[in-house]
Amino acid sequence: MSPDARKTVRRSRCVMTEIILPNDTNNLGNMMGGRLLYLMDKAAAISALRHANRTCVTASVDSVEFQSPIRQGEVVVIESQVNRVFRTSMEVELNVWAEDTRAQTRRICNRAFYTFVAVDDEARPVPAPPIFPETPEEHERYEAAARRRELRLMLAGRLKLQDVEHLRDDLLELVRQRG
Amino acid sequence: MSPDARKTVRRSRCVMTEIILPNDTNNLGNMMGGRLLYLMDKAAAISALRHANRTCVTASVDSVEFQSPIRQGEVVVIESQVNRVFRTSMEVELNVWAEDTRAQTRRICNRAFYTFVAVDDEARPVPAPPIFPETPEEHERYEAAARRRELRLMLAGRLKLQDVEHLRDDLLELVRQRG
Amino acid sequence: MSPDARKTVRRSRCVMTEIILPNDTNNLGNMMGGRLLYLMDKAAAISALRHANRTCVTASVDSVEFQSPIRQGEVVVIESQVNRVFRTSMEVELNVWAEDTRAQTRRICNRAFYTFVAVDDEARPVPAPPIFPETPEEHERYEAAARRRELRLMLAGRLKLQDVEHLRDDLLELVRQRG
Amino acid sequence: MSPDARKTVRRSRCVMTEIILPNDTNNLGNMMGGRLLYLMDKAAAISALRHANRTCVTASVDSVEFQSPIRQGEVVVIESQVNRVFRTSMEVELNVWAEDTRAQTRRICNRAFYTFVAVDDEARPVPAPPIFPETPEEHERYEAAARRRELRLMLAGRLKLQDVEHLRDDLLELVRQRG
Amino acid sequence: MSPDARKTVRRSRCVMTEIILPNDTNNLGNMMGGRLLYLMDKAAAISALRHANRTCVTASVDSVEFQSPIRQGEVVVIESQVNRVFRTSMEVELNVWAEDTRAQTRRICNRAFYTFVAVDDEARPVPAPPIFPETPEEHERYEAAARRRELRLMLAGRLKLQDVEHLRDDLLELVRQRG
Amino acid sequence: MSPDARKTVRRSRCVMTEIILPNDTNNLGNMMGGRLLYLMDKAAAISALRHANRTCVTASVDSVEFQSPIRQGEVVVIESQVNRVFRTSMEVELNVWAEDTRAQTRRICNRAFYTFVAVDDEARPVPAPPIFPETPEEHERYEAAARRRELRLMLAGRLKLQDVEHLRDDLLELVRQRG
Repeated sequence: MSPDARKTVRRSRCVMTEIILPNDTNNLGNMMGGRLLYLMDKAAAISALRHANRTCVTASVDSVEFQSPIRQGEVVVIESQVNRVFRTSMEVELNVWAEDTRAQTRRICNRAFYTFVAVDDEARPVPAPPIFPETPEEHERYEAAARRRELRLMLAGRLKLQDVEHLRDDLLELVRQRG
Repeated sequence: MSPDARKTVRRSRCVMTEIILPNDTNNLGNMMGGRLLYLMDKAAAISALRHANRTCVTASVDSVEFQSPIRQGEVVVIESQVNRVFRTSMEVELNVWAEDTRAQTRRICNRAFYTFVAVDDEARPVPAPPIFPETPEEHERYEAAARRRELRLMLAGRLKLQDVEHLRDDLLELVRQRG
Repeated sequence: MSPDARKTVRRSRCVMTEIILPNDTNNLGNMMGGRLLYLMDKAAAISALRHANRTCVTASVDSVEFQSPIRQGEVVVIESQVNRVFRTSMEVELNVWAEDTRAQTRRICNRAFYTFVAVDDEARPVPAPPIFPETPEEHERYEAAARRRELRLMLAGRLKLQDVEHLRDDLLELVRQRG
Repeated sequence: MSPDARKTVRRSRCVMTEIILPNDTNNLGNMMGGRLLYLMDKAAAISALRHANRTCVTASVDSVEFQSPIRQGEVVVIESQVNRVFRTSMEVELNVWAEDTRAQTRRICNRAFYTFVAVDDEARPVPAPPIFPETPEEHERYEAAARRRELRLMLAGRLKLQDVEHLRDDLLELVRQRG
Repeated sequence: MSPDARKTVRRSRCVMTEIILPNDTNNLGNMMGGRLLYLMDKAAAISALRHANRTCVTASVDSVEFQSPIRQGEVVVIESQVNRVFRTSMEVELNVWAEDTRAQTRRICNRAFYTFVAVDDEARPVPAPPIFPETPEEHERYEAAARRRELRLMLAGRLKLQDVEHLRDDLLELVRQRG
Repeated sequence: MSPDARKTVRRSRCVMTEIILPNDTNNLGNMMGGRLLYLMDKAAAISALRHANRTCVTASVDSVEFQSPIRQGEVVVIESQVNRVFRTSMEVELNVWAEDTRAQTRRICNRAFYTFVAVDDEARPVPAPPIFPETPEEHERYEAAARRRELRLMLAGRLKLQDVEHLRDDLLELVRQRG
């Protein structure tokens, strides 16, 4: 973790493990979705902090699906990492698993993307350092991050279709299918 | 709130007001995004409960943008309501404001959509009762909910383009613009 | 909420909605009284803040009766508003309901009065702006607040019987009944 | 604490000591009143439990004055005891001190009275065992509890003036003064 | 608690009473060990604060055994006091009891020793005032504290056997037994 | 994580990452020792759960030294693993680091040993499965765990010197040095 080291994806990785307590759950003893979103935000913030080395704030969360209920007493594992940097913003990917330690089973629960922005002490956005993917999987996520960003901006109404660049092929494919 | 009453949107409405305490904030004294997502989930769950009158669980959250930082000591107001029911699932709309009570200013912070599913005591999905929009604004939200649901299913890979119904015009418009 | 607007009772109104979680309850799964007093204090503080636009601190709480147990999983609604201002202090009225969302029933649980004092940054009392009741009900509460204040001061030993003004008729009536 | 032992006031005594953390405080770093009412309720519940040896629930709180702000980092000491039993209900007295451990000063902050009711497993009131005051001070509190109970019932509109017994002399004195 | 008063052990004594809530417990409804260690640390910090009259930080915890499970709804009593001062550090002794208020039984759960260090506003260790044991039991604890400190330093590898002073006889006895 | 898999040390490993919030800290903004002991207990419990696949309870904690203060806003990383199983009990090793993400520095804060016991649904101890160390470092920890256990039992007064087996050489060395 020396300050001079190259800023790799690996450096930003965070693993958070929690056991689900009564107050985390609803009346059926299942973890509340909002409680999980809160833990995911803390993990994502730590990844952003580790990469940008300054305060980072949540700018947006892409849509999240809750695929599998998590029960009281189960163990939740959240893994996060910065996929790509866009000047002041960073895409952080989160993968969430739940473990039933009695049955010795582990299942994927969520895959989500949070966007964080690095800020100065007056909370104004400042550039974050570029990130260097190393493995093929990290390179793939790096590329996909650009497409997700365009989709994000289109959904938020901040990007017009004619200005789309990375998503172009996907959209042409859509049009072709529809033909 | 009599059991026999017609299930209107108004009946599902929930107002939650909170004051931001130190533990809700990051190092700059601004509310953490995940903490707000947690409060929003609780408000949305109350709207779903008030409509379906049985336990409801978070199925998904549409993408959320955090437009304005909320500071320690400020007051947060969250308003939620069920927009539309799709058999077992409900779209809940949330609008979030922050108030600086000293300056007597109030600003919009978020607009978000959570999807909840009504479940039985074994957490299996069960049909939720239909909802009746009354005002023009509620009718508009009811219509928009169907388009948002198709977008949601497409983004989740569960709906193919040729099966799209409500979004059709929007997409044809997109293709035409691009032409 | 513009700073120039007339300070009405309506501007001070706060609605807080909460769902009762396991840690809010005693061994029988009923909400602890102190936990409700805490939520009521937060709602009252928000009403005082919205009226005085500066930090406000709890000066006293009138006696509170807990009329109906609230169960885990039920929804609590707290409504608060400033009834009247007495130079630096404000009477805040709170009404608390509990909802059994399954049975679709709602019942009143409490009616309480908290007194808040507006303070400067050294926590010294400072005058709060006068409040303007608008509806007949608000005017009635405004009048009753003066009587409650005299009772409060008498019970606290800070007002002698001969100095009572608003309560005079009530007390004469008591004496006459006793005759 | 043997089950056969005589039920004295001393057996019901509870001492609770807490250090004030950031989340207990308002924007000026002073403890929120509601947070103190919550701690007082927990201490009072323990005194009631120790006397009645079954679940006890808060029935009411007499008016409480907050005489002295308590600062973050200060130590709060709450002492509680059952003063008297009235069939199913118990008056619990609480005295609260704050300590500035740096300045080595200690000051009284509150004196309050909570009423608890012993309940069975369906939350229905059941008789609590009688209590035996031992010291002169405990006997004095025992007598005063009866007067406070009448005042409580009168304020709640449940006792008419002509049925007052213990408060009679105090009221006649009031009338005489007013003459 | 006057600043001029002699610094006795009694002045440092702290009693903390808590009722065990759902979130304090594991899946079997028993209090988690770490939750108890947290409460003990708060009680010990208050004893250290009361003696040193400045911020004190936890330097170490001697080994702790959890002899008896504590159940949800039971009452925990923690008593702490400073046994002895070693220039900047203080040994704080803690005794923990659990009460089953229904069965009217009380049992010892733990005896533990925390070491605190008095610090200045930059968190640098500063001397704490000497303490004056008064009762025979306090004198005994004062003597035992020196032996425990040597054992602590030996276990931490900071004291060599030849420099041991208070433990000498115990160790010679060990060697003799082994002979 | 298949149930049939060999029970290795690696399977029991847990990584917990947390960011230090205001309520975790004392008046100087440093993390309270008891708060860290609580997080460490949760991590250790997860390691024990992952190995024994049934509820596990904290039996004891070896002495812990707090070598380096952790500041608000810093990131804490706790790594835990089961070192060895002794019929019903397991030694869990914890290593704690703190990261100053701004300065990009990471320092070791603690190394600690918690002992957990596997229990049945009536909280009675039951045998835990044996563990298989794989790497040289895991084998070394496996051996050291036996010595630490003897020391633990001696310090708890449950093992006499003449019955010591694994610690024998260390003690003879001590006697020789002293000679």
